[in-house]
Amino acid sequence: MAEIVSMTEGQERLAGLLEVDEQLVDDITALLDSDQRGMVLNVMADLYAPDVARLLRHLPFDEARRLFHWLSTERASEVLAELDSGYRAALLEEVRPERITAIIDELDTDDAADVLADLPAEVARQVLPELEDAEDVQELLGYREDTAGGIMGTEYVAVHPDMTVAEATEEVRRNAETVEEVFALFVADEQDRLKGVVSLQRLLLSPSDARIRTIMDPDVISVRTDVDQEEVARIMERYDLISLPVVDAGDRLVGRITIDDVIDVIREEAEEDIRLISGVSAAEGPSASAFQISRGRLPWLLVGLLGATVSGTVIKVFEGTLEQAVALASFIPIVTAMGGNAAVQSAAIAVQGISSGDLWMGDLWKRVGREMFVALLNGLVTAALLCGFILLLDQVGPGSFGNPGRLAITVGLTMVTVFVLATTNGALVPFALKHMGIDPASSMGPFVTTLNDIIGLTVYFVFASLIYL
Amino acid sequence: MAEIVSMTEGQERLAGLLEVDEQLVDDITALLDSDQRGMVLNVMADLYAPDVARLLRHLPFDEARRLFHWLSTERASEVLAELDSGYRAALLEEVRPERITAIIDELDTDDAADVLADLPAEVARQVLPELEDAEDVQELLGYREDTAGGIMGTEYVAVHPDMTVAEATEEVRRNAETVEEVFALFVADEQDRLKGVVSLQRLLLSPSDARIRTIMDPDVISVRTDVDQEEVARIMERYDLISLPVVDAGDRLVGRITIDDVIDVIREEAEEDIRLISGVSAAEGPSASAFQISRGRLPWLLVGLLGATVSGTVIKVFEGTLEQAVALASFIPIVTAMGGNAAVQSAAIAVQGISSGDLWMGDLWKRVGREMFVALLNGLVTAALLCGFILLLDQVGPGSFGNPGRLAITVGLTMVTVFVLATTNGALVPFALKHMGIDPASSMGPFVTTLNDIIGLTVYFVFASLIYL
Repeated sequence: MAEIVSMTEGQERLAGLLEVDEQLVDDITALLDSDQRGMVLNVMADLYAPDVARLLRHLPFDEARRLFHWLSTERASEVLAELDSGYRAALLEEVRPERITAIIDELDTDDAADVLADLPAEVARQVLPELEDAEDVQELLGYREDTAGGIMGTEYVAVHPDMTVAEATEEVRRNAETVEEVFALFVADEQDRLKGVVSLQRLLLSPSDARIRTIMDPDVISVRTDVDQEEVARIMERYDLISLPVVDAGDRLVGRITIDDVIDVIREEAEEDIRLISGVSAAEGPSASAFQISRGRLPWLLVGLLGATVSGTVIKVFEGTLEQAVALASFIPIVTAMGGNAAVQSAAIAVQGISSGDLWMGDLWKRVGREMFVALLNGLVTAALLCGFILLLDQVGPGSFGNPGRLAITVGLTMVTVFVLATTNGALVPFALKHMGIDPASSMGPFVTTLNDIIGLTVYFVFASLIYL
Repeated sequence: MAEIVSMTEGQERLAGLLEVDEQLVDDITALLDSDQRGMVLNVMADLYAPDVARLLRHLPFDEARRLFHWLSTERASEVLAELDSGYRAALLEEVRPERITAIIDELDTDDAADVLADLPAEVARQVLPELEDAEDVQELLGYREDTAGGIMGTEYVAVHPDMTVAEATEEVRRNAETVEEVFALFVADEQDRLKGVVSLQRLLLSPSDARIRTIMDPDVISVRTDVDQEEVARIMERYDLISLPVVDAGDRLVGRITIDDVIDVIREEAEEDIRLISGVSAAEGPSASAFQISRGRLPWLLVGLLGATVSGTVIKVFEGTLEQAVALASFIPIVTAMGGNAAVQSAAIAVQGISSGDLWMGDLWKRVGREMFVALLNGLVTAALLCGFILLLDQVGPGSFGNPGRLAITVGLTMVTVFVLATTNGALVPFALKHMGIDPASSMGPFVTTLNDIIGLTVYFVFASLIYL
């Protein structure tokens, strides 16, 4: 075990953590290869569940599955909660339904519902009725995955306004087994209607005979089960909430969302943005095969190809113009690159404003006006530099540009026009997408960039045929 | 007030929240215009502090400043904590140092240090010594902003392992004024060395004469003051922590980071990625003038321009080739667009993997191999489609492509080569940037895209002059 102990050295910055790194993965692989079950489990015991999950993802899948089989029911459940859907499903493929049931029973209901949803239908049908919280889990499965109902759990402590502090404390104790992390008690009346909230700190510091009604905060923020998860994240983030009660259409308390669920949502949302910008589908996990990856990326590439072919067609249409002055071709990549850059800059600001809730539809025209002014400024600077460059090159090697003055005017005018069009495009499209229910981040993706190429090239060649020739 | 009451209707989804929307902003502006201070403050009283902050940001700046002056010291401090740096500094510009001191005194030390750091140096020098927690704040100001020390506060409850539960509860009570939200008690010895942690729930449910030593969890995760804030975010996120103790180089407890601080870090990190991808500087706030925005975006545009000019030069170099076959020009935007798309797809996956900590340097070559295979697949599909397209077009209008077979081979070979190079580039550059201490997200930005254009065009024209001519 000497080498495994040494790994924890050099890790002095993070007290209490055994780092999962390549060294550890190699060591565990070696132990698995020599079938040293006891040694492996010893190391596992020093790791937190999220680290075991990371370790599994870095092991060859067969070894990971073998290791997972060795874990206790409780450990296996903790680890499972940390893995993503696809991996989880694969890992459980050859596990007996009885063990799956036992593992899921250890989970909070929200995680239980998630795991169950990942199982093949026939296995899920077999497992669900056997669960301790079958009813709760069944109900959670009924909510859409990306809503408050879909991410909430049914683990919460609810107390009546007429209870005393001592009685409420007893209620916390009674639920301690299932509700492992209590941050606040939800106060509800006989009809389960949410009436207030009491922080654990408040409960701890109040006299034991005080009524909950007198110490609760009646001004409680809650969400309905059908609220979108991104809205839930924004609310918890904005109001610094650690746990948020969820109510049904009749205002009855049905669940609790905790901050860790919401951090996952924020992270997912950010990753989704990057995927939309880059044209990568969600499915591309670390264990995906090259064929799966290829298939996930191809649709986006084909959309890009279609657009690029239209760009190419624009040039084809103006082939006559190009034949008369082949020097025009040098500016093609400049027109497309600069239009794309300007559009993406402007779109990025709109996307962020919309996603943070700081930009409203009403801000649209004010924003567009300002963006056009910015475009004009930056377009002029770019145009001036390019004109100077053309005239300079003509001094160095006269005649290489035919009529350099006219070329400079053509390129300069094109730049300013392309900047204004592309920037307006970048400022407007995110709002338009939002309005159509499409994620505004798509406006930074290949589709819109290609659209800009088409517009930019058309502007360029029209100006060229009017001015340069 | 009729119209203001009506605003809360239709907002049934979110119990307990008065929505800040355009309607509310208009109403408040009208009230401010007619100087109805009482009415305005009435509406303010119904809003949570983060909503007042949002309202301010949507008001014309002068009105916002007037409204801010009307707020009580406590309210003003809550609102201030929710605003971003630049706006905060502007808002405090004409406030008297005495009021600034009073406002800062209401803040937690981490927010106090942030606000102080935003003030002009002479004002800060005047305010700091007057603060109740002057010493703590001074110390916090000494840490780098983006480290654990820079985001931690000094509000925490520390107890000794030999204390009883009753004594510890008394300690929570003694600190209730300054530490408004306690989630867990940190256990430290005489030398302030961190020994464990006790959740509030555990404290509540333990007998009052039990020793802290016997109920604490000695297996506590902590960070040193110099740990990067993104690392802190990853740790709190991975281990589902609500509060995290911060220790100094001697393992002595010096602060606490709470989950809301870390959510801000996660959000900032995601926004930073989008900015790097799009080439927008951090300074572009909602109140920035067009000139400020223009200045922030220009450097990126100029880098893009420089690169695009090199792309243009590549074409210029091959002008002779183009003159012989102007049909080649049509494929310029296809080569650049597809290379860019493929590179960004591959880079996005690497960027996400690096940022989540799931991709390691050791995974690099395995990944590059798989990416090259994906590139080969997608390059072949794209090449086949383009070749088919060229041959089809030649059937429709014979002669428009000179020798269509050779053109198809040129374009096809170029596509496969460009895909492989661009994808490898996209897979490698994020790791290289990471290694150089640059944010890997830059690999999706204008600089690398332009580099791809240059490589792609060179490949294309070299193949064209070898095969097509």
